[in-house]
Amino acid sequence: MNLYLAATYIIDARYGRNGQFEADDNSVRLYNLYTHWLPKLVTYFFLLLLLSLAIFEKPAVPGLEIEYWVTMPMELICLIVIGSRLFHLKLFSPGRTFYSDKKNIVVLATIVIVVIDMITYIALVNSGQSMYAYRWSRPLRPLILVNITEGRQIRRAFRNIRRTLPDILNVLVLFFLSIALFALMALKIFERRPELRLYTDNSPYFKHYGDIYFQLYVLVTTANSPDIMMPAFDSNKWFSLFFIVYLVVCLYLFMSIILAVIYKNYRRHLKNEIKKSVFIKRVKLNRAFDELKEQQDGKSVVTEKTWNAVMQEVLPNRNQVYYSLLWMVLDKDGNGYIDQNMFLQVADLLNVEVSEVRNQKHLIEKFWPHIYNSSVSIAVRQVVMHKFFRYFFDLAIVVNAFFIGFNLDEAEWFFLSVFTCEIILKLYTYGFREFCRRFWNIFDFIVISAAFIATIIEAALEELQYSRETLDVLLVLRILRLLKLVGSIDRFKIIIGTLTNIAPSMFTYGGVLFVFYYVFAIIGMEVWGTMLSGNVNVTFCNNPALIGTEFARDHYCNNNFSDVLTSFVLLFELMVVNQWHVLTSGFEAVTSAWARLYFVAFHLLVVIVVLNIFLAFILEAFMLESSLSAGKFSNAVEEKIKEMGLWVSK
Amino acid sequence: MNLYLAATYIIDARYGRNGQFEADDNSVRLYNLYTHWLPKLVTYFFLLLLLSLAIFEKPAVPGLEIEYWVTMPMELICLIVIGSRLFHLKLFSPGRTFYSDKKNIVVLATIVIVVIDMITYIALVNSGQSMYAYRWSRPLRPLILVNITEGRQIRRAFRNIRRTLPDILNVLVLFFLSIALFALMALKIFERRPELRLYTDNSPYFKHYGDIYFQLYVLVTTANSPDIMMPAFDSNKWFSLFFIVYLVVCLYLFMSIILAVIYKNYRRHLKNEIKKSVFIKRVKLNRAFDELKEQQDGKSVVTEKTWNAVMQEVLPNRNQVYYSLLWMVLDKDGNGYIDQNMFLQVADLLNVEVSEVRNQKHLIEKFWPHIYNSSVSIAVRQVVMHKFFRYFFDLAIVVNAFFIGFNLDEAEWFFLSVFTCEIILKLYTYGFREFCRRFWNIFDFIVISAAFIATIIEAALEELQYSRETLDVLLVLRILRLLKLVGSIDRFKIIIGTLTNIAPSMFTYGGVLFVFYYVFAIIGMEVWGTMLSGNVNVTFCNNPALIGTEFARDHYCNNNFSDVLTSFVLLFELMVVNQWHVLTSGFEAVTSAWARLYFVAFHLLVVIVVLNIFLAFILEAFMLESSLSAGKFSNAVEEKIKEMGLWVSK
Repeated sequence: MNLYLAATYIIDARYGRNGQFEADDNSVRLYNLYTHWLPKLVTYFFLLLLLSLAIFEKPAVPGLEIEYWVTMPMELICLIVIGSRLFHLKLFSPGRTFYSDKKNIVVLATIVIVVIDMITYIALVNSGQSMYAYRWSRPLRPLILVNITEGRQIRRAFRNIRRTLPDILNVLVLFFLSIALFALMALKIFERRPELRLYTDNSPYFKHYGDIYFQLYVLVTTANSPDIMMPAFDSNKWFSLFFIVYLVVCLYLFMSIILAVIYKNYRRHLKNEIKKSVFIKRVKLNRAFDELKEQQDGKSVVTEKTWNAVMQEVLPNRNQVYYSLLWMVLDKDGNGYIDQNMFLQVADLLNVEVSEVRNQKHLIEKFWPHIYNSSVSIAVRQVVMHKFFRYFFDLAIVVNAFFIGFNLDEAEWFFLSVFTCEIILKLYTYGFREFCRRFWNIFDFIVISAAFIATIIEAALEELQYSRETLDVLLVLRILRLLKLVGSIDRFKIIIGTLTNIAPSMFTYGGVLFVFYYVFAIIGMEVWGTMLSGNVNVTFCNNPALIGTEFARDHYCNNNFSDVLTSFVLLFELMVVNQWHVLTSGFEAVTSAWARLYFVAFHLLVVIVVLNIFLAFILEAFMLESSLSAGKFSNAVEEKIKEMGLWVSK
Repeated sequence: MNLYLAATYIIDARYGRNGQFEADDNSVRLYNLYTHWLPKLVTYFFLLLLLSLAIFEKPAVPGLEIEYWVTMPMELICLIVIGSRLFHLKLFSPGRTFYSDKKNIVVLATIVIVVIDMITYIALVNSGQSMYAYRWSRPLRPLILVNITEGRQIRRAFRNIRRTLPDILNVLVLFFLSIALFALMALKIFERRPELRLYTDNSPYFKHYGDIYFQLYVLVTTANSPDIMMPAFDSNKWFSLFFIVYLVVCLYLFMSIILAVIYKNYRRHLKNEIKKSVFIKRVKLNRAFDELKEQQDGKSVVTEKTWNAVMQEVLPNRNQVYYSLLWMVLDKDGNGYIDQNMFLQVADLLNVEVSEVRNQKHLIEKFWPHIYNSSVSIAVRQVVMHKFFRYFFDLAIVVNAFFIGFNLDEAEWFFLSVFTCEIILKLYTYGFREFCRRFWNIFDFIVISAAFIATIIEAALEELQYSRETLDVLLVLRILRLLKLVGSIDRFKIIIGTLTNIAPSMFTYGGVLFVFYYVFAIIGMEVWGTMLSGNVNVTFCNNPALIGTEFARDHYCNNNFSDVLTSFVLLFELMVVNQWHVLTSGFEAVTSAWARLYFVAFHLLVVIVVLNIFLAFILEAFMLESSLSAGKFSNAVEEKIKEMGLWVSK
């Protein structure tokens, strides 16, 4: 009976981890070190550092440029840390599982490629060939983020995307074929009509097939509607029929179908993922059971003694009372042992949150009991707990909103004191622990105390110099205060509840988007870099190729790839879609029509695939939200606790 | 035993009708007349005429204007026809059901209001007060379409919308509150920065709260992205954070949540609708059973004799063989009678399609058997049935595409003959009936024969005058021909199959959109009518208020409310969303800022509500498509047919 090994299996099952390791003591210890939070945090830190090098490398964010002979050693350190983490993994991996795992191979290959790139770069620069020196391996960096053990959530999202692709490919092919047919029709109908006026930017109207194809693709994104129709429409109103039919087919039908196909596949894969994770849990728990089992009445069972022993390894921070509680839930018939079937439910049982209410006293009650229990104090606490107390401060927020709206800044000190009072009174009545249990209390605390500190700083500096940035922060904090009102309206609670539940998964999609953004930003910077900029002259973005273009006329010069942060903003604008064809036209003007490929690829990948998968995720989250109920185990635990007379209602 | 009454109940159950009528013979006869296709068709015709009056009334489509003393009698006739249909309904409705049905009251009220409006209008015009004469009741016309018995599908869709509204209202309120907070933040941050440049159209940047609110609402529709950000972005790149956070919250989160809530409610209501329709079916069939039942062995049953008798009423066009087949499916144990439970399944059974293959001969085989059965003929038929025959013509289509693409019009006669040959050969081999069974054959036949006729017309007119319109039609037909290729690629068959299955329901949503479009178009014409037009001078739309505005600069003059068809195109553009704020600004310039209400209302109702419900419908259709299998009844019928040795495989 190896308690340490069994405890490791149980912890793996509890957190749904699927680490493979040899069963010998040394490997298990290495595995537990590997899953410890500290090495994880270190890896995250260096990964983040590696990715954020893009801020300092050329083309760098203005003022933050660092020479390559500084960034490269930093990069090397990051790679070494990540490499040693891989080496750590290799140490306890059984047999050939390390090399048969594609993730590890991808990370290793990426490291090797980056090192080769670094060497070539240094060699080229120092041999005076710096015009050929490109850091072409930089877009590969996110590969490490996705394939490292810690990137499990993001990797899962990517797997989802990869599996959905074949299914939407059919629809996409049909979609592109439809555009091809419509483009051919448009060419045939409009090329024989030289009387149609030009676009407002004097470019020819529907003359070349490739151009029409691109324009119609842009029309599906609605970015050039209705401008693309107007020349034809001005000549004959019936031409609008062509565009209406086109939009109904390619926008309303195809885009809906793409979402439908993505949603369908998303659900299918979600089901598979859940099945798989349940399977992994069972495997781990079976292994743990094999380690812990004893023979009793001819059956393999786990006894209470073994249970208590292994629980001390699994949950060293909990006490015997908790272990016994869990045991009582598991050992329903009270015969002193549990069989394999019951043992398989340990993982879910451990995830039920049971918080012990230590019989703690309010701090003030502890030190000054006569004050805390005085009649005034009791009255105050009763007032605070009354619903009119909440109504009063909700009203205060509304009044505050008007004061902010009408720029009556003199009252700010008053409101700040009122809301500070509210927090102090609540803290006094409920105690710190209870106060922190509610999301809106913490929100309130942060917003008010930050405003308090900023106001003091502002007051202190007032005679010296007025800082607009402090004022901005203060204003935002003041207005955020109003948000609390939303939290106190019952009808919004379900929506906000759902949102807070799915927030962690939403961050996963943020990670996926970050990966796409990073790759596209680095490529964009390598291709366009400082070809255009808005720093010196915004009328033509410092590039004569842009004189008189719509890009310059719309003042889009600052939307460029001059550094990684600006690139991210530009890519965000492209994700929002509107005017993306104008942005494209600018970068097309300074290079060639091939630039369209970059922008269309971004639109296809990010807007059509990733955003639709995100939408599918939200749809499913709201579908599940209503059908979710408290799991059977949290009920079983609650019952046992009540049975034992230890229940304290909130 | 009233066979006629029972048959009426069964037919109602079969088609899911829920008509209420008295059980006396006269009422049943009136009810059957009411549900007959001819009076329905007449009603549809006059309803369509009533709605299409908008084309002829002022402001009319150019060239189609008819004076009010012509349109009004037409309108009156339409109202009389619809009114008499209501009267017909009243005749057989039991007790007070006619008046307790809100639908009838709405239609009656609408008719009365329209008549009052007509009288007032005539009175005002003839008393010389024509400047006050508005036909204000015209937007009410679609109420008749929705509330008349025939508008059942559209009414169901509207009911769905109405039921979904309360649920999304919560989200919408939260959404508008969020915009309010962000607008307040924007006002506070940007009003203290006079150095920010103006918009490209020289309007002030973020100065008034109402204006900021509208701009931020437009930003959620993405129509003014990234222009709205650029002045702030040009001054300090960190301001982009405000817009990014705003878009993430209000666009990506809220818009997704709105779709999720709509989809969830759509599914819930769909389930209820299905339950309700099953219930109605059961009620009707129970009534029919009560009419037909006899006592046998102490149980209420329907005998085969009664069955045959009632079937002659229900399906007078079918023969005894079919009645017997159905009976054999129902009477499984062959004891000569069926009980109530079995009888309740009659409606589903009747909806199983069984087509009799009359032992018909090919026409040519009938008249010239020696030709049809000659060795040449057999060889030809074998060639046509071979898969290479299809491949060859698929290839021909591809070649044809290139000829069209490169304007080699001389080959057109050749291709037309080739494809005509294909159709003739197929007709010869499969026979007319079999040929027509495939969608793509019919499609092919229509496209090719239309092209044939048009080509002949073109050839006949060539010496006289070249008609560009004929050429346009020909070109479109030629290109549509290429579409056939899509039908022959297997991987697209599922998508196209799903689309053809849900096509009828999609037309329902077309109807819903039509209702919204009609109401908004009429209101738009009354408000803006001919205030701006693009007919004479497109640089300022014949309205000095538009000189120098973005609306005129973008050549949007022809997007106006000058007649109902143009209004529909404009509303379609608004539905596509892009540039809707520029279109709004034009109508705002010629009236006042209140014009925004009209455009925001249209966006909220059509884009946010109706289009999302349409999307929910497509999502659900694709979800169901995979889980649909042949119903148990079509299998039961198939088995019985096979058992009887009457099966003919396709």
